[in-house]
Amino acid sequence: MGNTFGKLFKITTFGESHGKALGAILEGCPAGLELDEEKIRLEMQRRKPGQSKITTQRKEEDEIEILSGVFEGKTTGTPIGIVIRNADQKSKDYTHIADKFRPSHADFTYFEKYGIRDYRGGGRSSARETAARVAGGAIAKQFLATQGITVQAYVSQVGELTLQKNYQELSLDLAEDNIVRCPDPEMADQMISLIDSVRLDRDTIGGVVSCVIKNTPAGLGEPVFDRLHAELGKAMLSINAVKGFEYGSGFEGVKMRGSLHNDAIVKEGDKVKTLTNHSGGIQGGISNGEDIYFRVAFKPVATIMQDQESINEAGEAVTVSGKGRHDPCVVPRAVPIVEAMAALVIADYLLLSKTNKLAQL
Amino acid sequence: MGNTFGKLFKITTFGESHGKALGAILEGCPAGLELDEEKIRLEMQRRKPGQSKITTQRKEEDEIEILSGVFEGKTTGTPIGIVIRNADQKSKDYTHIADKFRPSHADFTYFEKYGIRDYRGGGRSSARETAARVAGGAIAKQFLATQGITVQAYVSQVGELTLQKNYQELSLDLAEDNIVRCPDPEMADQMISLIDSVRLDRDTIGGVVSCVIKNTPAGLGEPVFDRLHAELGKAMLSINAVKGFEYGSGFEGVKMRGSLHNDAIVKEGDKVKTLTNHSGGIQGGISNGEDIYFRVAFKPVATIMQDQESINEAGEAVTVSGKGRHDPCVVPRAVPIVEAMAALVIADYLLLSKTNKLAQL
Amino acid sequence: MGNTFGKLFKITTFGESHGKALGAILEGCPAGLELDEEKIRLEMQRRKPGQSKITTQRKEEDEIEILSGVFEGKTTGTPIGIVIRNADQKSKDYTHIADKFRPSHADFTYFEKYGIRDYRGGGRSSARETAARVAGGAIAKQFLATQGITVQAYVSQVGELTLQKNYQELSLDLAEDNIVRCPDPEMADQMISLIDSVRLDRDTIGGVVSCVIKNTPAGLGEPVFDRLHAELGKAMLSINAVKGFEYGSGFEGVKMRGSLHNDAIVKEGDKVKTLTNHSGGIQGGISNGEDIYFRVAFKPVATIMQDQESINEAGEAVTVSGKGRHDPCVVPRAVPIVEAMAALVIADYLLLSKTNKLAQL
Amino acid sequence: MGNTFGKLFKITTFGESHGKALGAILEGCPAGLELDEEKIRLEMQRRKPGQSKITTQRKEEDEIEILSGVFEGKTTGTPIGIVIRNADQKSKDYTHIADKFRPSHADFTYFEKYGIRDYRGGGRSSARETAARVAGGAIAKQFLATQGITVQAYVSQVGELTLQKNYQELSLDLAEDNIVRCPDPEMADQMISLIDSVRLDRDTIGGVVSCVIKNTPAGLGEPVFDRLHAELGKAMLSINAVKGFEYGSGFEGVKMRGSLHNDAIVKEGDKVKTLTNHSGGIQGGISNGEDIYFRVAFKPVATIMQDQESINEAGEAVTVSGKGRHDPCVVPRAVPIVEAMAALVIADYLLLSKTNKLAQL
Repeated sequence: MGNTFGKLFKITTFGESHGKALGAILEGCPAGLELDEEKIRLEMQRRKPGQSKITTQRKEEDEIEILSGVFEGKTTGTPIGIVIRNADQKSKDYTHIADKFRPSHADFTYFEKYGIRDYRGGGRSSARETAARVAGGAIAKQFLATQGITVQAYVSQVGELTLQKNYQELSLDLAEDNIVRCPDPEMADQMISLIDSVRLDRDTIGGVVSCVIKNTPAGLGEPVFDRLHAELGKAMLSINAVKGFEYGSGFEGVKMRGSLHNDAIVKEGDKVKTLTNHSGGIQGGISNGEDIYFRVAFKPVATIMQDQESINEAGEAVTVSGKGRHDPCVVPRAVPIVEAMAALVIADYLLLSKTNKLAQL
Repeated sequence: MGNTFGKLFKITTFGESHGKALGAILEGCPAGLELDEEKIRLEMQRRKPGQSKITTQRKEEDEIEILSGVFEGKTTGTPIGIVIRNADQKSKDYTHIADKFRPSHADFTYFEKYGIRDYRGGGRSSARETAARVAGGAIAKQFLATQGITVQAYVSQVGELTLQKNYQELSLDLAEDNIVRCPDPEMADQMISLIDSVRLDRDTIGGVVSCVIKNTPAGLGEPVFDRLHAELGKAMLSINAVKGFEYGSGFEGVKMRGSLHNDAIVKEGDKVKTLTNHSGGIQGGISNGEDIYFRVAFKPVATIMQDQESINEAGEAVTVSGKGRHDPCVVPRAVPIVEAMAALVIADYLLLSKTNKLAQL
Repeated sequence: MGNTFGKLFKITTFGESHGKALGAILEGCPAGLELDEEKIRLEMQRRKPGQSKITTQRKEEDEIEILSGVFEGKTTGTPIGIVIRNADQKSKDYTHIADKFRPSHADFTYFEKYGIRDYRGGGRSSARETAARVAGGAIAKQFLATQGITVQAYVSQVGELTLQKNYQELSLDLAEDNIVRCPDPEMADQMISLIDSVRLDRDTIGGVVSCVIKNTPAGLGEPVFDRLHAELGKAMLSINAVKGFEYGSGFEGVKMRGSLHNDAIVKEGDKVKTLTNHSGGIQGGISNGEDIYFRVAFKPVATIMQDQESINEAGEAVTVSGKGRHDPCVVPRAVPIVEAMAALVIADYLLLSKTNKLAQL
Repeated sequence: MGNTFGKLFKITTFGESHGKALGAILEGCPAGLELDEEKIRLEMQRRKPGQSKITTQRKEEDEIEILSGVFEGKTTGTPIGIVIRNADQKSKDYTHIADKFRPSHADFTYFEKYGIRDYRGGGRSSARETAARVAGGAIAKQFLATQGITVQAYVSQVGELTLQKNYQELSLDLAEDNIVRCPDPEMADQMISLIDSVRLDRDTIGGVVSCVIKNTPAGLGEPVFDRLHAELGKAMLSINAVKGFEYGSGFEGVKMRGSLHNDAIVKEGDKVKTLTNHSGGIQGGISNGEDIYFRVAFKPVATIMQDQESINEAGEAVTVSGKGRHDPCVVPRAVPIVEAMAALVIADYLLLSKTNKLAQL
């Protein structure tokens, strides 16, 4: 239980950080999609380790191999099997923690749950698993592109450094121009400096990824439990290190009065619009056609290059030393992961919406 | 799609605000539970309208009738059917908005999705649907009680008024002593005054509900997608008017360094503990046995007693006037709903955890 | 687990034979369907007890009440809640077997599974549960009618009496002209006599229900596990007393050679056809547009009006005496149940098929 | 939709006949199982082509590679990824049918459903997909062995040749001593001769596989829709070429009277038993602890070495010539597939049963 996401457009992942391979099965992608493998590789590049001085220096090429579901360049409607071999498995980096529980990692909880664990690099709990999600999400993105829908994420906060502009005041395409993936060049510089100084302190720091989805039709969402934002929230909270999710006005909206918060509805030409968008493009759990936007909080990475007190499997007090090659801040590499999960949700809900009305069947 | 929540311990709800009845089917509750119907009624009382001057003055008794699944006072393992008749259906209150889309309501989105809508009181999108959840959650709570697990929520913010103390500095039982359900009596008074003044302004305001779950065993959670906090987050985001969810250190934790954020592990007697609990009782998506705590943001209620600009189904500009009897702030009545959904999640994950290890089968 | 059937067009049932009520939640029925409640009632009449001398003489009116999901005569896309009150609850008929396990009933297995059971009339294991399915299936049928699809079942065997003609040689509409629901009047008379004589022997006998589905489009089916016939088979096997399912050439087809069994494909005008239909309208688990037909085997009813040896909950040998009012043969009343389940499957797979091709989205 | 089977113990498969690879993800296998890879390989051998003169002469080694979920020889509770590379891809064998619809194959229906198809060897519709199931089922079998449960299938009919003895009169272990997998040596010889003569006729023939599951505890099954035999039936009907399923007394039981069909319950020592077992080990959809047995009908293979009339994608009449290397009768190789699917169902339902009673939690 728990390795599949989605109802019609579904992803199932497998694989541990230092096993033979990771992979995914992507189901429900409509048949007839011309698949551009190069675009999948580009997404993998955005997530892969070692891409800049502020990410982990591990070298993994994250080459994908598509094993099924594509014929003569097009999807066939059958499941798309994807494998990503683990190349750079420095498992010996982990023997020093083989029986130790690293603080704020999943070592203890996996051991309690299963009575056994693959300690190498966190095993299944490693963020390496998200490589499989990015591959699947890259296909979802290509499907969404055929419907005119785009998904774009960026870093909006690192530690205390917070981008004050909202997404409409920014050129989101600038995010890919710098290694921290913040679309404001000045703020990007500050963020990079901060992460670099944290790294030199052998420490880590948290951050926030913001995301905008444009051109979704009105009508996506499956109330009452599978509201569109509930599914988006779950998708984001399923990403490693995520501690919070808010959409539209979010936690700040709590402070507003209804008379200010409500989004007045108007008609412009043929299109129904709202004058403001505190709703974040979703009302009653269903998209209204406005931009969908949300924020995702990532905690500071648990692996730090310092000694920490903990216990081992025998319950004895031990010191855990930081070794290996890790990210001082996870958000720059989290950007494509957030996009991947968002794309998977929207693709799924788009398919679901096709079955709602007798009129459209 | 979308009317069922849970995998093994499942709730399915039906019903509109002004139809004949609401109801729920609760599946998977283990057989042999002595069911106390009075306790279910008490939970219904906590959610029902008209309970104080700061809630809507609608009168609904919300009487539940259990139709199946219980025999001689005990659950039998078969589905528990519950019906709640709609008594106080002032449907004529809604004829004035029959073809109008109320701002920031689900009127427009339901119409776009289904091409038809029950406009009376918001139909299926009404928060009245949560009555069925509270009934189901009350049974989940009784199941959890047999395992020693408690779920307790309270109001921690209304508008700008924010309770600065964390849950460990409060006597949570005091929350039920005042009508706003804030466990700090002084803050409660301020919150009540604020809501009352907002009400007199014919306006509404948002708030935050906090929740604490105690005594869960380590090992609950179904990574990678169905992490315990991801499912809790989805459960909360599926509640009407919710805009955000965070657990443990949440959005604030973003600002911390890993060296401070990490929770050191120690052994006290037989029990593994953490010295701090920024993790919010969940690591790698699996409970570690510490208290689970989280916060849920509720927007200001969309129905205000003021005129607002909007359009009707024909796309013509119209004025929507506020009528009917509505809550100026939703959080006091949201407390039992948050508890209900939390209890349903924990009950479900407790059952799932029984199948993890060969050793325990 | 186990009380829901379907993926998009879903039914969830609840209720015991002698509890307060049975019911169903029907989800996923497309919005905008004009619902004819009278047609639902007609289906309920076909299933209800006491309808003829060869069915049980219990009197239950099986009145349905629709609680939600329908507004001004049309479905709204929200769940349709249905309740059927239990009127004729002669629970005292069952006190004599309160702690006894009736042979070939579910008394022992429910007790082993749950440790507790509602012994009155078999509780949840009673075929009375199928009343809720017939109500849901009647709505599915109305949906299918908008797509031109029909589902028609009939009795083709009682004991050794087997209708030798296949469905194309029969006027299926004649089935409703006699109380055994066999479309061959002569065979019907023989079957009625046989059932009547079995009844006078205070015994019971088995039978077969055949079913034909016409006008399904090609393309319904979800390989590899959810093949159309696999889902139909599960639907049928989920009906009380069913012991077998076969479609197309079935068990007899085993004896044929491929050269005879294969259905040659031809084009007649615009339509692709097969010259024979041993495939039963399904190839590779997907409908091909030909008639879908299948057979369902029902065992003799377990309740007989004779003394039988068994044990009680304490493990002591006891005699179980046949009391109450029961069917000597279940197939006449099973006809609408088979149709209901078949309609639910086809409705579900029709919705699923809308999401297969990029071209049709 | 449709590539996953199971609720807790789940298999998801991917892959086409002539793509790069097939594979499976097996989820929910309890942690701590010592996995014997050799036993998986033995099951693969039983299914693989080219194993005898009465099976296809294609040579595929069907080597499995386990990519995840196993650490130091034990399952870890995380998904087990399995890949089987396609070695012997004689895709050119299929160019002659690239745009033709083979009679009684899935060529036409896949084309109608998806608008595109991988014509090589039937693509996803090929029985080659069952290799992935056998790998997963082999792991399920090892799990069941820890609970003392065995699953054993054998060939009981080929064409008109029917084994008259029931499973209790046979030594089932003898089935593996001959190439047709019939435990009666004399009948086996006849069956082999029949298949051989059919092969020489360039034709094919159907058959029946019987299966027995021993030592299941009472209490497995999830009524009302997920009855144990309904899930077993669906599992079997999901296998290529299957046309029917019956359990216990099956279609023959229809002819019996209830007084003979009912299984009297007795207590022998500590164990509750039935004197007969027409119920096939399942009552009310729940196992009663007796042997579970069922029969599965396989049609004659659609690929024959003869010319057949059909049409192509353009709708033109064409001749389809039989080429390639195919099985004259599918049942000898179907035996391990039936066992695999049965093992997956029982493993799944065993896990589900752990959550039924408050008493056992």
